[in-house]
Amino acid sequence: MSRELFSLAAGGALLEEELLQGFAAPCEDAHRKILAGFRENRTGFGWYGLPDMSLEELRALAAQFSSVNTVVQIGIGGSALGSLMLQKALAFHPVPESIPDFLVLDNVDPRDLYRLEHTLDPVSSLLVVISKSGGTAETMANFLWAFAFFEKKLGRQEALRRTVVLTDPESGILRNFVTETGCASLSIPSSVGGRFSVLSPVGLFGAALLGISVEELLDGARAMRSRIESTFRVEENPAWLWGILSHLHEKQGRNISVLMPYADGLEDFAEWFAQLWGESLGKEGKGTTPVRALGAIDQHSQVQLYAEGPDDKLYTLLAVRTHEKDYLIPEPPSASLGALEYLEGHSFGEMLYAEAQATASALVQKGRPLFWLEIPKLDAFHLGGLVFFFEYVTALTGILMGINPFDQPGVELGKIHTYSLMGRKGYEEHAEAVEKQREIMRRLLVKG
Amino acid sequence: MSRELFSLAAGGALLEEELLQGFAAPCEDAHRKILAGFRENRTGFGWYGLPDMSLEELRALAAQFSSVNTVVQIGIGGSALGSLMLQKALAFHPVPESIPDFLVLDNVDPRDLYRLEHTLDPVSSLLVVISKSGGTAETMANFLWAFAFFEKKLGRQEALRRTVVLTDPESGILRNFVTETGCASLSIPSSVGGRFSVLSPVGLFGAALLGISVEELLDGARAMRSRIESTFRVEENPAWLWGILSHLHEKQGRNISVLMPYADGLEDFAEWFAQLWGESLGKEGKGTTPVRALGAIDQHSQVQLYAEGPDDKLYTLLAVRTHEKDYLIPEPPSASLGALEYLEGHSFGEMLYAEAQATASALVQKGRPLFWLEIPKLDAFHLGGLVFFFEYVTALTGILMGINPFDQPGVELGKIHTYSLMGRKGYEEHAEAVEKQREIMRRLLVKG
Repeated sequence: MSRELFSLAAGGALLEEELLQGFAAPCEDAHRKILAGFRENRTGFGWYGLPDMSLEELRALAAQFSSVNTVVQIGIGGSALGSLMLQKALAFHPVPESIPDFLVLDNVDPRDLYRLEHTLDPVSSLLVVISKSGGTAETMANFLWAFAFFEKKLGRQEALRRTVVLTDPESGILRNFVTETGCASLSIPSSVGGRFSVLSPVGLFGAALLGISVEELLDGARAMRSRIESTFRVEENPAWLWGILSHLHEKQGRNISVLMPYADGLEDFAEWFAQLWGESLGKEGKGTTPVRALGAIDQHSQVQLYAEGPDDKLYTLLAVRTHEKDYLIPEPPSASLGALEYLEGHSFGEMLYAEAQATASALVQKGRPLFWLEIPKLDAFHLGGLVFFFEYVTALTGILMGINPFDQPGVELGKIHTYSLMGRKGYEEHAEAVEKQREIMRRLLVKG
Repeated sequence: MSRELFSLAAGGALLEEELLQGFAAPCEDAHRKILAGFRENRTGFGWYGLPDMSLEELRALAAQFSSVNTVVQIGIGGSALGSLMLQKALAFHPVPESIPDFLVLDNVDPRDLYRLEHTLDPVSSLLVVISKSGGTAETMANFLWAFAFFEKKLGRQEALRRTVVLTDPESGILRNFVTETGCASLSIPSSVGGRFSVLSPVGLFGAALLGISVEELLDGARAMRSRIESTFRVEENPAWLWGILSHLHEKQGRNISVLMPYADGLEDFAEWFAQLWGESLGKEGKGTTPVRALGAIDQHSQVQLYAEGPDDKLYTLLAVRTHEKDYLIPEPPSASLGALEYLEGHSFGEMLYAEAQATASALVQKGRPLFWLEIPKLDAFHLGGLVFFFEYVTALTGILMGINPFDQPGVELGKIHTYSLMGRKGYEEHAEAVEKQREIMRRLLVKG
């Protein structure tokens, strides 16, 4: 018997069977496009095959560094968010001696370097640098600083022995650096984009260093892929339903998609999804804005807006049914707190789940559209399933919208302006454009 | 000469002088309403006077616990977000021995308790519990658990000596608990709502325990209040400009407000703002959805959507001009990385600032409306100024919108459903409503 993966329910408008059935053919078409793109090894489609990835090389390299105390991973965007998500979800225990600290250096904020300078001992550390192109400015600035820091303490040869590079198998300056210096490396498959790369070495190498079962992650992803492939009937296919309704609600003017897990361990999952969704679908004037929330905390922050603000959102509540280690709420310690006796004897996990249900039913009662997505427990297998689910629905929704979910043309302009401001050769001609925009902003300027 | 507080610039549509001047009278009216509400001590208006708060009692109590190693603060929403924001922004140094660990227990996730159970030593810890009403279910469940944990290790009397309660000065079961047990307490002023409470003991007690200058925070808030009060000329009043344009862009259909600081230390500031804005203004079908972003990281996640998705957002980029401790980008270590020489010699702080400017100019070039808000550096004085600025603009915008920014009627339904699911007496009749909504969701249910 196969393991339970998830359950999905939907509430709110646009659930008429006829309407949904009308999308059976477009979904089948989109599914075949995804399959064809993967089989033809086209740019961007590689994520579909990652659950079958061989783990041998990655595990062997991770085993080589099993005694390090601290991993400093340098990367930004898709080279950081997946790792942070896996760490937060699956490496949660009070840190035992055998699991290294895992620091992700993604921003270029000098505070992060100050902290590293004062706490990091390169002698027992490993430097992992991730950039597919090798040219990401923030990543390379951080790498130059961190490598110099390691080199100063350890000398060049030992610094290189403590450096692992994850980059394109063939091209780019980081690959050239590997060739030149002979430091260890893993390849990021050419057909996998950054935001779809968590089940490649980009996410899995760090996970393996943290003792997370990378096999279980891939098992879960494979199980979800099989489940999605198992039926072309809309009402039985969770990914098709999720994609169709996302598409329909956007067309109806709901331009915000809220992902609200009820589990601290999934807080960064919503952050990972925000990149996947926003960067894949936000183009050609289309795309809904991903908003990440966290239950039950955001009941005390965002639910007022969700319940009584504009009807401009589609909600996905993501609940975890059971917890490996749970605690009962104890009895009130004294008479003055007697009114709390209704809490006594319930477990915290039960309370968290009840709050998720209460929020779902309150939103449905207010007429707001939502998905209830539930996993039996939060472990590598079920997280792997969720990862594949959201990668698939993102690709599917993009194809239903008629856009290419695998490019990101809109980030170039900001990069060019940065290069110009940093004085990179060849970008002098853009200085004028930057100055023009700054001039526009100076017209309304207030100081205090 | 007064210290520089900030500068604000605006780009994009709706900046015509005539249009803005049309709001001079409504802003003046709203300002007088805020002043009158404060002077008459009306519910919700108390934040306006917090910069004048006496700190004596709070500092004396904090001094009593200056030797604890760990502070566990229990509270949710407004009783957590302000503290987390101050901690992240101002207690960032590599932790010296003299600053305690500061753990905020806000969610009711059993993982948090597992971690506490395995790492916390009550002998050297302080328990701070914050709930104005004393009835917040999540806070009280966590307090029952944590107090029982302290009591088991220390006995009741010592557990009480290590407990500080922040609650209403007179009413509620937590105030009764203080009266009954004699444990230490501070009062949350009755006229201050949770999301406006960071400059009350709710935020400042934890800050004082962390060695943050609470005087400087209030100095900055006072300076910003004076600056806002200093002029009724729209084009010279930063808060009026920000409020008017927020209101106008919402009326034009831009239903999303992005706050994107370029500083890791301000990541939680955007989270704090999200509660302030969302819960204050999301009512009567109105309100824009706050989205928090973080530069430069989100250039690799959300900027594709910002630049090429729908024109449905108003952006506020929040930049920090100088950094107390900055680092230069070193030269590339070898020939293969020679292409990175354009980075060499720039500082990281300079790069972060350039990226903010590049993103601003790219968004303005794409025709997107944005504010550029800048502080000279990130310290208690300037953060206090920002806090007051955003509290004021939230209240102002609410009054311009014609709603009450100080209530939160929309969170009640979810609470009632939770009570019903938890079996609280008096809520039995609501079970049927909850079940009805769950039934609706079961109509479209997929398992896998």
